[in-house]
Amino acid sequence: MDKVNLTEKLALIGEHWKPHLVAELDGYDVKLVRIKGDFVWHKHDEEDELFFVVKGGFRMDFRDRQVELGEGELIVVPKGVEHKPFAEEECQVMLLERRGVINTGDAPAGELTRQTTPRI
Amino acid sequence: MDKVNLTEKLALIGEHWKPHLVAELDGYDVKLVRIKGDFVWHKHDEEDELFFVVKGGFRMDFRDRQVELGEGELIVVPKGVEHKPFAEEECQVMLLERRGVINTGDAPAGELTRQTTPRI
Repeated sequence: MDKVNLTEKLALIGEHWKPHLVAELDGYDVKLVRIKGDFVWHKHDEEDELFFVVKGGFRMDFRDRQVELGEGELIVVPKGVEHKPFAEEECQVMLLERRGVINTGDAPAGELTRQTTPRI
Repeated sequence: MDKVNLTEKLALIGEHWKPHLVAELDGYDVKLVRIKGDFVWHKHDEEDELFFVVKGGFRMDFRDRQVELGEGELIVVPKGVEHKPFAEEECQVMLLERRGVINTGDAPAGELTRQTTPRI
């Protein structure tokens, strides 16, 4: 039942696109991630996924539109919907998703795939 | 798949201690609430509950300790743990909890109990 300071935790993260676990809620993980550049197109067939911008901003690309997100804004990507985050400048994000979700979803495992989520 | 700007949504809320729904993730609700003063002691027997401070600060009282939370900080109250939020000055909070949770948990329904969660 310790509190989590998002900025302090984000300062511990070096690598881009590598989510770190900071809290758990029932069967869900609260993760922090620093993102920069282009991710891969993917979807999660069974899980919705929440993105909340802690610092900076990024663009969520969908196949038919783009959504620009700034600090203090969130978006829920519904299960089954293809998406691709893109951050021109580094952006700090809080993620919420069901435990066990792989970051690259249904995309072939590649250099951005993270099989583990270190706790910080 | 619209984004949610927390500050804009919070500006639509008048009443204290009345959560409003802004997004859904699988079977979970993302809610916003403005709090001020003392809530009631309660627990949720089956659900963890996440509190994230968007603006201001508040104190989470547990039976054996108190945790002060400021902007950008979160805490997860595990299922079954008695707690009571207290905000000396108004505080804006994002909540995450399983759909259907009643805000006053196991406490007798009273003037702070909200049976419905309007969507904004």
